Amino acid sequence: MSLKTLFASRAGRMKASEIRELLKLLNRPGILSFAGGIPDPALFPAEAFRAATARALADDAVGQSLQYSTSEGNPRLRAWIAAYMTKIGAPCSEENILITSGSQQALDYLGKLFLSPNDTALVGWPTYLGALGAFNAYEPHYDRLDPSDNRSPATLAEAATAAGGRLKFSYVTPDFSNPTGMTLTKAQREALIDQADALDIAILEDSAYYALRFDGDDVLPILALEIARKGSIEACRTVYCGSFSKTLAPGLRVGWVCAAQPVISQLVLIKQAGDLHSATLNQAVVAEIAETSLDTHLPKLRAHYAKRRDTMLDALQRYMPPGVSWTKPEGGMFVWMTLPKGHDGADLLATALETQNIAFVPGSAFFPDGSGRNTLRLNFSSPNETQIEEGMRRLGLLLTA
Amino acid sequence: MSLKTLFASRAGRMKASEIRELLKLLNRPGILSFAGGIPDPALFPAEAFRAATARALADDAVGQSLQYSTSEGNPRLRAWIAAYMTKIGAPCSEENILITSGSQQALDYLGKLFLSPNDTALVGWPTYLGALGAFNAYEPHYDRLDPSDNRSPATLAEAATAAGGRLKFSYVTPDFSNPTGMTLTKAQREALIDQADALDIAILEDSAYYALRFDGDDVLPILALEIARKGSIEACRTVYCGSFSKTLAPGLRVGWVCAAQPVISQLVLIKQAGDLHSATLNQAVVAEIAETSLDTHLPKLRAHYAKRRDTMLDALQRYMPPGVSWTKPEGGMFVWMTLPKGHDGADLLATALETQNIAFVPGSAFFPDGSGRNTLRLNFSSPNETQIEEGMRRLGLLLTA
Repeated sequence: MSLKTLFASRAGRMKASEIRELLKLLNRPGILSFAGGIPDPALFPAEAFRAATARALADDAVGQSLQYSTSEGNPRLRAWIAAYMTKIGAPCSEENILITSGSQQALDYLGKLFLSPNDTALVGWPTYLGALGAFNAYEPHYDRLDPSDNRSPATLAEAATAAGGRLKFSYVTPDFSNPTGMTLTKAQREALIDQADALDIAILEDSAYYALRFDGDDVLPILALEIARKGSIEACRTVYCGSFSKTLAPGLRVGWVCAAQPVISQLVLIKQAGDLHSATLNQAVVAEIAETSLDTHLPKLRAHYAKRRDTMLDALQRYMPPGVSWTKPEGGMFVWMTLPKGHDGADLLATALETQNIAFVPGSAFFPDGSGRNTLRLNFSSPNETQIEEGMRRLGLLLTA
Repeated sequence: MSLKTLFASRAGRMKASEIRELLKLLNRPGILSFAGGIPDPALFPAEAFRAATARALADDAVGQSLQYSTSEGNPRLRAWIAAYMTKIGAPCSEENILITSGSQQALDYLGKLFLSPNDTALVGWPTYLGALGAFNAYEPHYDRLDPSDNRSPATLAEAATAAGGRLKFSYVTPDFSNPTGMTLTKAQREALIDQADALDIAILEDSAYYALRFDGDDVLPILALEIARKGSIEACRTVYCGSFSKTLAPGLRVGWVCAAQPVISQLVLIKQAGDLHSATLNQAVVAEIAETSLDTHLPKLRAHYAKRRDTMLDALQRYMPPGVSWTKPEGGMFVWMTLPKGHDGADLLATALETQNIAFVPGSAFFPDGSGRNTLRLNFSSPNETQIEEGMRRLGLLLTA
């Protein structure tokens, strides 16, 4: 007897991710891993968490902090986020905010909101692997979102029709993208709005790394540019996803969606049916820390990760052989490497684990069609400077061999 | 410009629930509400939560408690739950356990796992409203799960085929059901297994209230009966959903699924794509409390709610006019009332709010087809004894008028 024959058709689209399978190998002692995408736990503001949790569990608050709460989320946290969004250029009110269990849940719920089977989503080539995982459950097709793509809106729309549905949204990670570390320019963001207007589709702006800029100037969020153009968030097609996972800590699972009210209203129904609401205690704790100490915490975080990025870029410069290139991110957690044609990231990983005791993610995992075999992703948020120096030295040996 | 035209077809099935809209009225001062389904916050084990949280955030644990963690869930909590399931008659290992963000998320993910559009789910008539909400997103049909239904398996299967899909599962709340308060007998549970075997479908056993038995003898879970019959959980079609929301506190959003490993494996992929994992801190806190103080907490909880149930049943006996009947639950949080034919629960609620300042949930909300208009659900976990006495007096006035 197996229940597998009863699974819905979408189950066929949901497979174990390469990264996940890979991470199982990383408990091996002595391994230098550049494969993860996790924050350095030494940077979690432990004291702030202890104080905020103690406050939320105090006699006058505990009954509320442990009780059911509304699907929209903690009003104080929604108000803080609305003020934050306004500050970064996207004026809105708390009615435009839904609290989610991390931005991964936002991606799942947005797939659920927009995608009927055989609809098409435009995504980067490469793009964030977790977004593909979330969307796959709704059985879409993917087409290429590429600023240098010359296909007309009509051509893109026709391809979607031929695939059996319609174009629903473009999904973008504009700031220090996972996996490439690259940031879209203002002109590229404006072009995405033009394209979405022409296609009459939504834009999903996944801005998980926005606050982790080390140098260079902030570029306005796509949502901010669209509000500037159209006068109000209610006239906008951009749906912004934010997260506290990279700025405070991921283990509390608190993120948000910021969008026009009809989108938020429908997402609230999805949230209600999906898990009722994000954990009440966690939202209260994050609201407290956001109000009291996030502003003083962020500069420490940026300085810490900037040093690691610098160490990695410097080591790459010294150890990589000719023909290897890599991105120079202004923030975030990742460097993206391109090897000479013919190299295969998956084969290289196998050798790296075997001969150098180092790990990274083969870049093809981030391409919807499994292309990009001569690329790989290197994380610099988790390993320390010594490990980065030694790891890049070993990677250099591997590529020079 | 509206993005509504871009919403997936499933959005049409996701509407604001009656209970939710209703609850907005309940902040009115002086109202006596029997509408909610929430635990009494005075019973949350606040000291245990403070101690467990302090431990999880101590220097030697904080880095892990606030970090990303595995999609399956906290190993210590999974081991505790596996031992608990074994203790209540369903021997299994931690490989059979997935941690979810409350049992509501388990229902959402199980809908996602099993239901293609136009498949049929067998549900109680009435059934838990939140299950209908979760399943609706996957666009199923519903057919009636009724022990006194004489339709053959072949007839049920044919109806599902005629509806455009196939029968995938029966969904049952066997213990002190929300909304009826009723408990299935062992014979009824065995009959459900027979039926599922004949139909080759899964059984979703939603056991959120299992631990809240005030009197009478425990009835073995359906999963336990099926394991006894078939020798191992791996041979079983029953998928058990449990929760800490009713026994510890709902605001942490920690529940679980217990099932054969191939089901858990696929649910882990859904969880990974859905929100990566449930909050790390919350799982550590619940594991600590489950191990240290749940056993001493439960008897207090049962005694407290039993008194409220007794107060409600006693008051109903004194205040209800002839022709009104109600269930006598052995546990849980709800009494289900049936009014003489011709009464309408929704009309009655409007009058109740206007003339008596009391609230309850019209029973039709719990019927997939909106029938059962002469029924209503009364909650006894949230109001105290004085409020229950006074509320039932007013309900009696209303029904006698």
